Amino acid sequence: EVQKKNGIASIDPLPSWSDGAAKKAIINYVKMVTDTAGGNFIPVPDRIATFDNDGTLWSEKPIYFQFFFALDRLKVIAADHPEWKNKQPYKAVLDNDMSTLMKQGEKGLLQIVMATHAGISTDEFESIVKQWLSTAKHPTKGRRYTELVYQPMIELIRYLQANQFKTFIVSGGGIEFMRPWVEQVYGIPKDQVVGSSVKTVFDYNNGHPVLKRLAAVDFIDDKEGKPVGINKFIGRKPVFACGNSDGDLQMLQWTASNSLKNLELYIHHTDSTREWSYDRQSAIGTLDKGLDEAQAKNWLLVDMKNDWKIIYPYEK
Amino acid sequence: EVQKKNGIASIDPLPSWSDGAAKKAIINYVKMVTDTAGGNFIPVPDRIATFDNDGTLWSEKPIYFQFFFALDRLKVIAADHPEWKNKQPYKAVLDNDMSTLMKQGEKGLLQIVMATHAGISTDEFESIVKQWLSTAKHPTKGRRYTELVYQPMIELIRYLQANQFKTFIVSGGGIEFMRPWVEQVYGIPKDQVVGSSVKTVFDYNNGHPVLKRLAAVDFIDDKEGKPVGINKFIGRKPVFACGNSDGDLQMLQWTASNSLKNLELYIHHTDSTREWSYDRQSAIGTLDKGLDEAQAKNWLLVDMKNDWKIIYPYEK
Ligand SMILES: [Ca+2]
Ligand SMILES: [Ca+2]
Repeated sequence: EVQKKNGIASIDPLPSWSDGAAKKAIINYVKMVTDTAGGNFIPVPDRIATFDNDGTLWSEKPIYFQFFFALDRLKVIAADHPEWKNKQPYKAVLDNDMSTLMKQGEKGLLQIVMATHAGISTDEFESIVKQWLSTAKHPTKGRRYTELVYQPMIELIRYLQANQFKTFIVSGGGIEFMRPWVEQVYGIPKDQVVGSSVKTVFDYNNGHPVLKRLAAVDFIDDKEGKPVGINKFIGRKPVFACGNSDGDLQMLQWTASNSLKNLELYIHHTDSTREWSYDRQSAIGTLDKGLDEAQAKNWLLVDMKNDWKIIYPYEK
Repeated sequence: EVQKKNGIASIDPLPSWSDGAAKKAIINYVKMVTDTAGGNFIPVPDRIATFDNDGTLWSEKPIYFQFFFALDRLKVIAADHPEWKNKQPYKAVLDNDMSTLMKQGEKGLLQIVMATHAGISTDEFESIVKQWLSTAKHPTKGRRYTELVYQPMIELIRYLQANQFKTFIVSGGGIEFMRPWVEQVYGIPKDQVVGSSVKTVFDYNNGHPVLKRLAAVDFIDDKEGKPVGINKFIGRKPVFACGNSDGDLQMLQWTASNSLKNLELYIHHTDSTREWSYDRQSAIGTLDKGLDEAQAKNWLLVDMKNDWKIIYPYEK
């Protein structure tokens, strides 16, 4: 879209965003902090922007897409584990019995994640993720998972990058589940991804070294873990942070404490027709305390239904 | 320095390097992998270069500079710890009794590191490091520690960056000890530093959030830990890696296993006049197994005495 200002044509950096308060606030912020003459100028190295992934850059319903990956993967490798037929939580997955599966609690879910994410090399895991993404489809949308990314957020990432922000993903999801595709899909380099991880060990392997993925948690990049992960991987406090759930609250608090001019955004899932509508009561992507704090602190609430002209790139 | 080639003046990218095999090998490598027409072209996102720090980018004698920081810091905070006067390993530091200190072993050294590196916030630690660097001087060189960086290596980093390599530090040193100064001194961004770390926790602190540094090791980025750290923080195998000791051997092995054209360098400390001369027998920066493997595998050995015209920037 080409707009005219002072008779000069300019390209709209956020064409999928409706003209409204959210779009205006983002553009005003970026103009303000990149204006060398203004009092809120931010030097380039401090222009750090962090984005949650699930529910912020792509959908997360009916369950986290990485969990669909784990379920599919468990069925593939079940041939090597005949004992799983009679052992929970594996049996529930193989029987497609979601109700029993959900009753296995966090311990059961962790067992499924470890069974499907560990015991192989980092190279093997990357190939498996890529292979799955190239074939698997979302159960109700019928689309590949990487098609279910938010077009307005991709534009926002590009807009910040064009204004010399360094953009990072800071997600509770697996760092090595994201790296194989985020570069191509979001334009965010692999080394600018912060996420949860399992421990790995180096094996010289007779001159063909590999890193083996162990069935042990290394880091959980969620809630209080997000500022910890930001400091560990980035080493700077962000000036711009965007999330969609209570899991992002500490990241937004951390960003809001920056002495440089900062902006905090919550993506609010309000579109039950084009995407999903949920907040306080949802088991996945709960936005409750965060919603209260966003309102109390005047953080930017992005209303997906009204602020976004389209949700997914394929709607263009 | 301006050189002429085919009648066209070109600027020497490595003016502090003597014309010799090492300089030629580096320039040939960079030309080869950036030549789109050649069979060894490397796409920009895969141009990952990793550098050890102590003994590779700055000096490390008579002991690691970070250890001088710890000793100085211990003396500053000793006023709050009257019990240290009679308790090892603290007593040895306060008495400047290096012989007794060295007898305290790894446990004693770790106690000193934790006493001086933990128990404060990340912001406080950054200020303390900056303050120390702005005043402390090397015991024999009489220079500030950040003056004791290697001019030829700074040129090499710049040369790789100019050829669209993404340059990272991968050091056994503390990640938060390096970040306060590496951006200014080496031109390497804070988020491109991999190093050892202590655990941190987020404290909301009544709306003034801080990250507290705990007296617990989070990650040791040395030996087998270097490929682990590279994978964790960078997510890609390097094509170019440079170290100076056996602590870098696994990083160089990992890099050498890249299917893309790669280059491994060892900085060999051979200059007892301008810097220090040491390898197999040195307690700090031991280069023994690495030296054998470098010779067996034809890795590039940089001879500081002969390959470098100057060592430190202040010699210019
Ligand atoms: Ca989320
Ligand atoms: Ca070293």
